[in-house]
Amino acid sequence: MTRSVSEHQLAVEQLLGAGGYARAGRGGGAAESLPLTAALGRVLAADVHAPVALPPFDNSQMDGYAVHLRDLGDGPAAAGNGEPEGHLRLHVGAPVPAGSSPPPLEPGTAVPIMTGAMVPAGTGAVVPIERADPPRFPALSTGDGGQPVVQLPAGTPAGTFIRRAGSDIAAGDLALEAGTLLGPAQLGLLAACGLAEVAVRTPFRVLLLSTGDEVTEPGGPLGDGRIYDANTTLLEAALRDAGAEVLRTRVLSDDPEKLREALDTPPAAEIHLILTSGGISQGAYEVVKQALSGSGVEFPGVALQPGGPQAIGTLGGVPFLGFPGNPVSALVSFEMFLRPALTALTGAPAPRVALPARLTAPASSPAAKHQVRRGLYRDGRVELIGGPGSHLLNALAGSNALVHFPVGLSEAAAGDEVTVWLIGPVPPPAPPVPAPTHQELPS
Amino acid sequence: MTRSVSEHQLAVEQLLGAGGYARAGRGGGAAESLPLTAALGRVLAADVHAPVALPPFDNSQMDGYAVHLRDLGDGPAAAGNGEPEGHLRLHVGAPVPAGSSPPPLEPGTAVPIMTGAMVPAGTGAVVPIERADPPRFPALSTGDGGQPVVQLPAGTPAGTFIRRAGSDIAAGDLALEAGTLLGPAQLGLLAACGLAEVAVRTPFRVLLLSTGDEVTEPGGPLGDGRIYDANTTLLEAALRDAGAEVLRTRVLSDDPEKLREALDTPPAAEIHLILTSGGISQGAYEVVKQALSGSGVEFPGVALQPGGPQAIGTLGGVPFLGFPGNPVSALVSFEMFLRPALTALTGAPAPRVALPARLTAPASSPAAKHQVRRGLYRDGRVELIGGPGSHLLNALAGSNALVHFPVGLSEAAAGDEVTVWLIGPVPPPAPPVPAPTHQELPS
Repeated sequence: MTRSVSEHQLAVEQLLGAGGYARAGRGGGAAESLPLTAALGRVLAADVHAPVALPPFDNSQMDGYAVHLRDLGDGPAAAGNGEPEGHLRLHVGAPVPAGSSPPPLEPGTAVPIMTGAMVPAGTGAVVPIERADPPRFPALSTGDGGQPVVQLPAGTPAGTFIRRAGSDIAAGDLALEAGTLLGPAQLGLLAACGLAEVAVRTPFRVLLLSTGDEVTEPGGPLGDGRIYDANTTLLEAALRDAGAEVLRTRVLSDDPEKLREALDTPPAAEIHLILTSGGISQGAYEVVKQALSGSGVEFPGVALQPGGPQAIGTLGGVPFLGFPGNPVSALVSFEMFLRPALTALTGAPAPRVALPARLTAPASSPAAKHQVRRGLYRDGRVELIGGPGSHLLNALAGSNALVHFPVGLSEAAAGDEVTVWLIGPVPPPAPPVPAPTHQELPS
Repeated sequence: MTRSVSEHQLAVEQLLGAGGYARAGRGGGAAESLPLTAALGRVLAADVHAPVALPPFDNSQMDGYAVHLRDLGDGPAAAGNGEPEGHLRLHVGAPVPAGSSPPPLEPGTAVPIMTGAMVPAGTGAVVPIERADPPRFPALSTGDGGQPVVQLPAGTPAGTFIRRAGSDIAAGDLALEAGTLLGPAQLGLLAACGLAEVAVRTPFRVLLLSTGDEVTEPGGPLGDGRIYDANTTLLEAALRDAGAEVLRTRVLSDDPEKLREALDTPPAAEIHLILTSGGISQGAYEVVKQALSGSGVEFPGVALQPGGPQAIGTLGGVPFLGFPGNPVSALVSFEMFLRPALTALTGAPAPRVALPARLTAPASSPAAKHQVRRGLYRDGRVELIGGPGSHLLNALAGSNALVHFPVGLSEAAAGDEVTVWLIGPVPPPAPPVPAPTHQELPS
């Protein structure tokens, strides 16, 4: 039974979509309410409509003078020629700080108004302070020496430097859709709407089992022929990084009976997926395969390298996936199958950024398989790091991209374009602008 | 005093680099030791050299038969012609499971060996089980009926399907450099090296002050002329997302005296940066500017839109930055100045991915300024979302990219290439491979 990558991607997505997480919230998990900043990286459980308009009221875009609509004169007509016609001389009224609710503006009077402050009723436009003469606000208290006067350019078009109420979003309009991943801008928007809490989907919960006689927990001594367990740490971190919660259980031996016992033990919390790595291949000691024979779990071969052997099914009604045991195979399996399925089901994590990149050196790939190599991406080019071997964890740790060689591609030349998925930090590019000096800038 | 963007970027980087965080760890912050999975997203405090080789011993890359070097015969010579010459008939010895330490291999005997298992001394190569005749392992106990025999292809080159000890990394070699951001692969590598804990840099700690008479905490009623405080939530989330710790203090009024008091109060923990937003512009009620007049804090204008007004200096020896008060200006200031400086100083967060993108529509920009617009990036194209206004938080929340219009650019046409920084999820691209069906795959 050999499957294509996309067939297995679909199977994993369908497996999770038929599980308890989807049932809990009609496709979106159960919901919980959190204070805004605790909701960073979480997924919105329901649509949010703006309870207020943004901005809530017409306000000034600049520090300047609010001018009455009647005083603007032939503003719109003069707007096209680049230079205002003539000047206005207006009395200066009481200033409008941000946060105040000013009285209506009288024609013939201009009032100092600060950025973000509500424009008084009757305002036609705001003229920035630097276009005023004098180009600074009068002292806030003028004493008895008479009302100050300001000279402003005439011809300002109506509406200039006024931000209209609702110009960002109208009250009642959809602000954020259910399923939106909440980052700083989305949380800022919810705060601007006056919301202190937000309903988010509960996390997807994974029971991660490590198995195998040959693996030793990090921190202890390493016996002959044994290796340290990298997969459990790697997969736990990958799952947490993707927004999932992880319960981690260690099964100490390759005895299928022990594994069956562990799988039969009801977990402390509801589990949405059981995940193992290793023990699903063609060898003589494949603990997961042996423990699950007759369980209905399938062991398809997928046309993927690394990550060809896969296990998929349900155990006691809970979705089950088995990844192969080499660390690079386990990570590639996670990135190719589980991570996209989590995004589709839960709204998190963000999909990997996929980019075209040119190979820095030639490469070959088995034509019958989708090969995923590891590489270092920068500035549109990708250098392969390490060989195709699925044990090359150090090479993986020095990479920032998965490099895709699809089925049918056997040889690629330096300069050929491939698709990469970014999985780590990309070195910063050159600044997007040549840096001008002081002298080059207009004053 | 007008600065270019790159001048202010450098100034912010230098400010943080001269502060307490840099002094604590000779440029890298103080260190703390954490269990591996608690170190996800943290930054390595010191170089890690591999305490063991990876792999720790020569091991098999396949489930198959370990064959003695002497039995390989003219393997290397035959390797070039694609077909092995003749066959070997070998007795089958005791199998080698992963995790065991096998006795040396005798010439004339092949031993079943599982993926990852230590190859016995004397092994020349591993022949995969599917090339053996019979293509399956004999029953593990053969009783007294005589030693089973297996037929294997001759001509396998020495070293085939053996992963050499240290081929991923040699013991003592540099595994991860100080300053490495720890993701799943890096943590997996540390686990594979047998490390249960890792020394990481302590987080950068920010005191975030919200100010202003006109802003109201989300969750309460909104008075006339007032708006909800979006900036504090937005900046707190942006800082946390970047790996920083945030202490949040609310200053209830626009009274400079109150702000000075707040700034003079020694914080509960060591602070590496004091950050405010708002109150630094040209208006008549600029609380931060008034409170800090005479403090040595500078208020440069930067040739950036939005985000032109900036404040920078030190207060009581602690680095201080003041961002402008519009939410989009605050976020753009964070992304352009503080986030890159945090990456340079602390190793986190990962730099923004910068990409070329083609505009879907024409756009204009003030030639004297570096304009940063918000847009939706997908498949190499970017659509601008909302106008240039710095109050358009809903438009920002619907964007996934900052779009750069550098100094000197005033008009851009649809199809023109600009640089974007990805700040949010990019919709998944089409699958990187056409999906082959079962029938198209080799069996």
